[in-house]
Amino acid sequence: MLDLLITNGKVVTQIFTTVLDVGIKGEKIVVLAEPRILGEEAKRIIDASGLYVLPGAIDPHTHIQMQTSGLPKPGFDINSIAAAYGGTTTLIDFAPLISGKSVEETFGKRRAEAEGRLAIDYAFHAKFTSPSRDLIEEAGVAIEYGVPSFGEVNLDERRGTPADDAFLFALLQEIKDKGGIAGIHAENASLVGYFTNKLLRDGKRELRHVPESRPNMVEEEAVKRTIFLAEKTGAALYFFHLSSQEALKAVAEARDQGFPIYCETCPHYLAFNDEVYQREMDQAIQFVRFPPIRSAADQAALWQGVEDGTIDCIGTDHVSAFLSEKKALSEGKAFNEVPGGMGQIENRLTFMYSEGVAKGRISVNRLVELVSSNPAKVFGLYPQKGTISVGSDADIVLFDPKPVRKVTSRDLHMGLDYTVYEGWTFVGWPAMTIARGKVIIEDGRYVGSLGNGEFLKRRIGKEILFPRRRK
Amino acid sequence: MLDLLITNGKVVTQIFTTVLDVGIKGEKIVVLAEPRILGEEAKRIIDASGLYVLPGAIDPHTHIQMQTSGLPKPGFDINSIAAAYGGTTTLIDFAPLISGKSVEETFGKRRAEAEGRLAIDYAFHAKFTSPSRDLIEEAGVAIEYGVPSFGEVNLDERRGTPADDAFLFALLQEIKDKGGIAGIHAENASLVGYFTNKLLRDGKRELRHVPESRPNMVEEEAVKRTIFLAEKTGAALYFFHLSSQEALKAVAEARDQGFPIYCETCPHYLAFNDEVYQREMDQAIQFVRFPPIRSAADQAALWQGVEDGTIDCIGTDHVSAFLSEKKALSEGKAFNEVPGGMGQIENRLTFMYSEGVAKGRISVNRLVELVSSNPAKVFGLYPQKGTISVGSDADIVLFDPKPVRKVTSRDLHMGLDYTVYEGWTFVGWPAMTIARGKVIIEDGRYVGSLGNGEFLKRRIGKEILFPRRRK
Amino acid sequence: MLDLLITNGKVVTQIFTTVLDVGIKGEKIVVLAEPRILGEEAKRIIDASGLYVLPGAIDPHTHIQMQTSGLPKPGFDINSIAAAYGGTTTLIDFAPLISGKSVEETFGKRRAEAEGRLAIDYAFHAKFTSPSRDLIEEAGVAIEYGVPSFGEVNLDERRGTPADDAFLFALLQEIKDKGGIAGIHAENASLVGYFTNKLLRDGKRELRHVPESRPNMVEEEAVKRTIFLAEKTGAALYFFHLSSQEALKAVAEARDQGFPIYCETCPHYLAFNDEVYQREMDQAIQFVRFPPIRSAADQAALWQGVEDGTIDCIGTDHVSAFLSEKKALSEGKAFNEVPGGMGQIENRLTFMYSEGVAKGRISVNRLVELVSSNPAKVFGLYPQKGTISVGSDADIVLFDPKPVRKVTSRDLHMGLDYTVYEGWTFVGWPAMTIARGKVIIEDGRYVGSLGNGEFLKRRIGKEILFPRRRK
Amino acid sequence: MLDLLITNGKVVTQIFTTVLDVGIKGEKIVVLAEPRILGEEAKRIIDASGLYVLPGAIDPHTHIQMQTSGLPKPGFDINSIAAAYGGTTTLIDFAPLISGKSVEETFGKRRAEAEGRLAIDYAFHAKFTSPSRDLIEEAGVAIEYGVPSFGEVNLDERRGTPADDAFLFALLQEIKDKGGIAGIHAENASLVGYFTNKLLRDGKRELRHVPESRPNMVEEEAVKRTIFLAEKTGAALYFFHLSSQEALKAVAEARDQGFPIYCETCPHYLAFNDEVYQREMDQAIQFVRFPPIRSAADQAALWQGVEDGTIDCIGTDHVSAFLSEKKALSEGKAFNEVPGGMGQIENRLTFMYSEGVAKGRISVNRLVELVSSNPAKVFGLYPQKGTISVGSDADIVLFDPKPVRKVTSRDLHMGLDYTVYEGWTFVGWPAMTIARGKVIIEDGRYVGSLGNGEFLKRRIGKEILFPRRRK
Repeated sequence: MLDLLITNGKVVTQIFTTVLDVGIKGEKIVVLAEPRILGEEAKRIIDASGLYVLPGAIDPHTHIQMQTSGLPKPGFDINSIAAAYGGTTTLIDFAPLISGKSVEETFGKRRAEAEGRLAIDYAFHAKFTSPSRDLIEEAGVAIEYGVPSFGEVNLDERRGTPADDAFLFALLQEIKDKGGIAGIHAENASLVGYFTNKLLRDGKRELRHVPESRPNMVEEEAVKRTIFLAEKTGAALYFFHLSSQEALKAVAEARDQGFPIYCETCPHYLAFNDEVYQREMDQAIQFVRFPPIRSAADQAALWQGVEDGTIDCIGTDHVSAFLSEKKALSEGKAFNEVPGGMGQIENRLTFMYSEGVAKGRISVNRLVELVSSNPAKVFGLYPQKGTISVGSDADIVLFDPKPVRKVTSRDLHMGLDYTVYEGWTFVGWPAMTIARGKVIIEDGRYVGSLGNGEFLKRRIGKEILFPRRRK
Repeated sequence: MLDLLITNGKVVTQIFTTVLDVGIKGEKIVVLAEPRILGEEAKRIIDASGLYVLPGAIDPHTHIQMQTSGLPKPGFDINSIAAAYGGTTTLIDFAPLISGKSVEETFGKRRAEAEGRLAIDYAFHAKFTSPSRDLIEEAGVAIEYGVPSFGEVNLDERRGTPADDAFLFALLQEIKDKGGIAGIHAENASLVGYFTNKLLRDGKRELRHVPESRPNMVEEEAVKRTIFLAEKTGAALYFFHLSSQEALKAVAEARDQGFPIYCETCPHYLAFNDEVYQREMDQAIQFVRFPPIRSAADQAALWQGVEDGTIDCIGTDHVSAFLSEKKALSEGKAFNEVPGGMGQIENRLTFMYSEGVAKGRISVNRLVELVSSNPAKVFGLYPQKGTISVGSDADIVLFDPKPVRKVTSRDLHMGLDYTVYEGWTFVGWPAMTIARGKVIIEDGRYVGSLGNGEFLKRRIGKEILFPRRRK
Repeated sequence: MLDLLITNGKVVTQIFTTVLDVGIKGEKIVVLAEPRILGEEAKRIIDASGLYVLPGAIDPHTHIQMQTSGLPKPGFDINSIAAAYGGTTTLIDFAPLISGKSVEETFGKRRAEAEGRLAIDYAFHAKFTSPSRDLIEEAGVAIEYGVPSFGEVNLDERRGTPADDAFLFALLQEIKDKGGIAGIHAENASLVGYFTNKLLRDGKRELRHVPESRPNMVEEEAVKRTIFLAEKTGAALYFFHLSSQEALKAVAEARDQGFPIYCETCPHYLAFNDEVYQREMDQAIQFVRFPPIRSAADQAALWQGVEDGTIDCIGTDHVSAFLSEKKALSEGKAFNEVPGGMGQIENRLTFMYSEGVAKGRISVNRLVELVSSNPAKVFGLYPQKGTISVGSDADIVLFDPKPVRKVTSRDLHMGLDYTVYEGWTFVGWPAMTIARGKVIIEDGRYVGSLGNGEFLKRRIGKEILFPRRRK
Repeated sequence: MLDLLITNGKVVTQIFTTVLDVGIKGEKIVVLAEPRILGEEAKRIIDASGLYVLPGAIDPHTHIQMQTSGLPKPGFDINSIAAAYGGTTTLIDFAPLISGKSVEETFGKRRAEAEGRLAIDYAFHAKFTSPSRDLIEEAGVAIEYGVPSFGEVNLDERRGTPADDAFLFALLQEIKDKGGIAGIHAENASLVGYFTNKLLRDGKRELRHVPESRPNMVEEEAVKRTIFLAEKTGAALYFFHLSSQEALKAVAEARDQGFPIYCETCPHYLAFNDEVYQREMDQAIQFVRFPPIRSAADQAALWQGVEDGTIDCIGTDHVSAFLSEKKALSEGKAFNEVPGGMGQIENRLTFMYSEGVAKGRISVNRLVELVSSNPAKVFGLYPQKGTISVGSDADIVLFDPKPVRKVTSRDLHMGLDYTVYEGWTFVGWPAMTIARGKVIIEDGRYVGSLGNGEFLKRRIGKEILFPRRRK
């Protein structure tokens, strides 16, 4: 007897949309069938008529466990519950590689912090805390450990010592040999410094100068140089939070050459353009990100990439940032000292459905690809995660395309004092979230238990490291 | 209760390989499940342990109903049974468009010829019998009728009047508007004439001159010109029997630009190279094809395209040609008067498995893509055909990877007096063929009944006409 | 003692502009020197202070000796004098290759027609009168004869049988072997037919439909296909009267690949855009040309090519067409039956100076390159013609940059009843024309004698056939 | 009366080769004429029958005034005389830009060092001694001063602080605004460090590891990044001593896009390949250069670039390095501590004639272009230098193509204890060198007087900063 049967819903994968029964036993999907053809019995039967049955969303880019200031912040618990409310059933956060400490020790510590705290499954990208050469050998250990993705490999000077070409090249060779993928924060630190200092020397300290301080070429150069080095080694790359049209074009060209180059963009680059930095300080400060939000032309190019397949994944780059705290820390500061970060772990799927599917830009299959299947494939979770098929984890979202809801931070569950979507109207909303066979969000309430979320050991797939197209 | 349950087999699609139960009711697949999880009951249960469970293969390119000489030839009956022996459950043959006659009449006549004669499902490409302008309007009618693919649109002078640019352009505009796809035989008729006449003037009449009479540039020019015209209209193209590296490169570049350009190659271009034309007349005559079989470098490039995804489909270009007849007709003739054609409808899946999968060039998923999923997608049969999923037709091949068999024409079922693979050793062989729920090949015998094969009305998918990647 | 000394003028070549003395003895330039450094003596000394001293212009594209109707037309005499008035000292007209007749005979006949009739030197392009294969062997004879350029090789159906691919390819091979260059009229005949017939079927017969009947793609396809064939052979190409941006881009790309591909545009494509076909019939009929005058965007792209070096030469495509006659022949005719042709042999240099140099688009050195040096180089007349250097023919124009003149056909010398520049204001005008050492235009009068013009035997230079940049 | 008349020689420019009289008065060429047409009188008449009359060669890349060790070295005097022996009449050395000191002061100091010491004319590239931002403003002053070229802008870590992207970008913007050109030493310092350290860690200290320590990608990356930054600003670039095929391709592509990107290679990259580092230490040490001498494939690609025009200039990168001193300084050192540098200021023209012209690879006109006209044009000396035309400086080499000489360092005049061409046979040798009208080398002896050489103020030409081809 099945434990759970979802009947009559429109099952959506990257490939097809069909009305099917989904039968679950324990944590796994064990049956897909024509509705009620077998008269299956189940402990619980959910009628999903009129709902989409989607594979649980995967957020490949969050910064939860990163206490950058002394203030208490929402941690794995609140953030993972908020994610589940938004239809996300897996998240990938960061764990540090620290010079002089073993992977076993540092990852173990981070896992201990997560133990019993998460509502959904989780994994880590290994993050370099310094460009020390000994960490490069540690990269191989991390891959063995089940953490085969690295990043954000930092070409931006804001965050400690940026990786120089020698470090980056050595890392790419190591992960090529061992089967990993490098995640890149692509901004040329030297050029950022140049533009920033020029503005400051000219007395231009306001937030409206953020875009000028990091023009598109800052990202374009970093992307092209990283691709150059990656092509020499054959290593796989993942560009976090791609924001500009030139960078996107460079990625597309490398991909067309058959190199294993992947990219992500984030909802805020699709939702907004650089007009936001012209707003009042109170507003503008919400949008301080690196890379910054770009022109309307870039925004259009990113949507084009979302539509045409050039962009592989949507990640949130989520940071639990309180607006009040951001303001306090920015008192009297120049634009380059204002802390970045934006909280949106809860709104990725709804945003992409509402602005993407409901507005006719993408199909619901492409939605699944962007928020679930591709993150799973790129980062070595597929087909355990990222699809609805027999043998996969029963991570499922029942998504209702009908609700029309006005967004306000008070209705969200991230524990923050603002949302950049305040006042937006979203069409469609998750009706139920199921994580490894357990219903955890139902009737608008979290009904799971912390600790259900497990650490996922990963291995990057051969088809990601050696994509078919084209030498 | 299920009609048929295939249990314990390794189910293979374009995407995954998993041990699953496949439950069939009537003509459809209705369940996929963990083996025996539900204790399903079925009228017949087949244990497929150790076998691949593949979607039935689809041959997108056969010339069965083409009585070019007065001699009796194997027809739909024998050929469709031979196809089924080889694991093919759908074939696409040609039906004429004739100036002055209606689609209803000509297609009706061809369907009447097929009625009750086929062991497997079939469809037609519409074939122009002359470049008459009135036929272009008829193309729209054919699409409405369910025959939305055209070809071989003939840029080769051997076969009646070739399509000139005006005809081709007008056709492309029409099918763009109506939602069809043009299938192209890409050889520049004028250049073929030039090279052929030059050889004949020099007294070079032997078969060893076949490659010189149609050098690669003959195909390359035709491919590039057709792509040029297609790009101006946005129309979808399918290149039949692509044979040369330059042409393949041109197709790949157009595809990378986001144009709906697809291509096929045939087993003979992968199995052989132009050394065959240097053999004795008896041997060489088997390989007379247009385009001809090419150099070892082209052969390698085509395998590369099979591996890397540039080539979409494998078709046979099957013609029921008797070697004895070919010889009789060629007595005293120059190379350009020798009839072409080669029978191999039965060997496509086995050849591709043996030379592709068993030799480690491609995965079994890619095999399924090439011989089944992609033909189904390109020509508007997916997901009814081309995959194993709930709701699809129960067209299934149980493929045994273990047998090692020496090929001889006597063991085949095409009714011909030779095979170009005579003496080859193939690894892997179909163990059972199921067509729309009925077992038709079992224990090496045909156990179906003629007339099971039905005519398939088709409609080209939006994702084929407007592929995602890239403006 | 020198025969003629031009002192104090600004000598202009492709490379430099310097105040120099130019000393002439007989037909040749024998000295270049700092003004009066040697105290040279001369029979005549011309003070060219304030004037440009330019190499005589070369018109690489005229249709003078082409009596297409029964009416008397200005011939070599009037046209060559008009050319001289405009600063042109060499013209290249066409002589036929006729199936069954020898080069010696047909060229001899044409030379006899020219004997004693021209005011300036002349040469011929060999013109195919039919795509007969025997003419291809004759092409080698023509090259030997000193007529190594061919054209307009006709891909346009209006003018008798167009060259098919086989003919074109055979020709390219022959001239590659023998050292010639093919001049191409690049319009796809089949597509022209398609668009024209479509318009006529729709009852669209007026001149305003001329552009639609030959859209840019008609030229683009012909250019790309010809380049394809040329690249396969390595043969040199010259595109006559290029008119569209796409075609220009294709030429530039082939050139960048190092292929010997050259192109010309004509003043009318630079002066006008397709708005002219919207004018009243009386006006519009003046502009009927093949290819037609194109959009403002094409016009801008051609000027860009004139500025940036993509365009090699300016030719006139001159035809002695009377407006009255054009009108008479067009009575009641559809646009495709209106005779083309435009008379402008006299205005090339002045147009290019006025619109190019005076308006700051090009330097006077680039002007010399376009109207003199490049035509000389491409067609094998350099350095005998096309430059001012010691040893070159004393073909010289003293060009006065100061006059501002309103153009009217009555003031011109072509003997026609209209000019397309009627009412335009030109800045700059030739003050004196010297042909092989003889002053032939002076004080606004022709003071030479017919018969001074000689037939020029040519040989295409190695650097044209094998340009340096780039395999 | 002329001061000097060179009669009957074959005058060679970039464009033509003609037997002409060259008349000189004072320091200038004042007449070009048919031999003896005017019966010119002259104080001295030189019969150049059988000789080439070439414009004096220009060496755009020497490191003479660079006392890197305490030892006495040949200075401006000996080196400029050696240059003259080799047919070079102008050299461009380096003068420093020093933080905190004015251009007036530092350039003045260097000019004072040169005053009365040179046999031929000279100019300076401004060289940054540190990447201090204040020097960028000084760059504008240098341009005003007549020193509009900069370099070697150092992307290689061996030579003090390399320029980071911010410095490079700021510099490019400045020189774009002011009309200069940046000369680049293109090696990625960070990657050089990576490869070098890896070798040293592995105990690989011998000279045979030089190529591995700076593989082609080190140059390719630096070239591509610099081009990226230059394209963003529109600034002109000159790549010193280009050595690899990938870098050359990148330059060619940028050029084809119409960017003002130029490049040089040196005789040693054409003469040798990396086999030299496998020789005995005594031999191998002669060839230590940065970038190193590369593979035979790179050598072939560079010759191709010399032939096809991709390479603009040949420079020597001359350093007065004694072999004995190099050896002494390298005792017990690893490959990366061996001093680089190679003396060859005397052999550029002879090498290029012998290996280029005499072996049929290039024409004598292309030779002139590479060693004289292009250096003059790129660096703002044309047409004062770099050609033979009326008004140009009378810098002339009479070059005898007949001598066949075995090269030995004892016969050279550079004052060094070796030459890398020891034992080579050169065809052709300079017979006489004339500098600004004075014969300075004659009958194998230096007959000039030190101090004849003057400092040349330069201004980069508009056609270099804005090359014609192509947006």
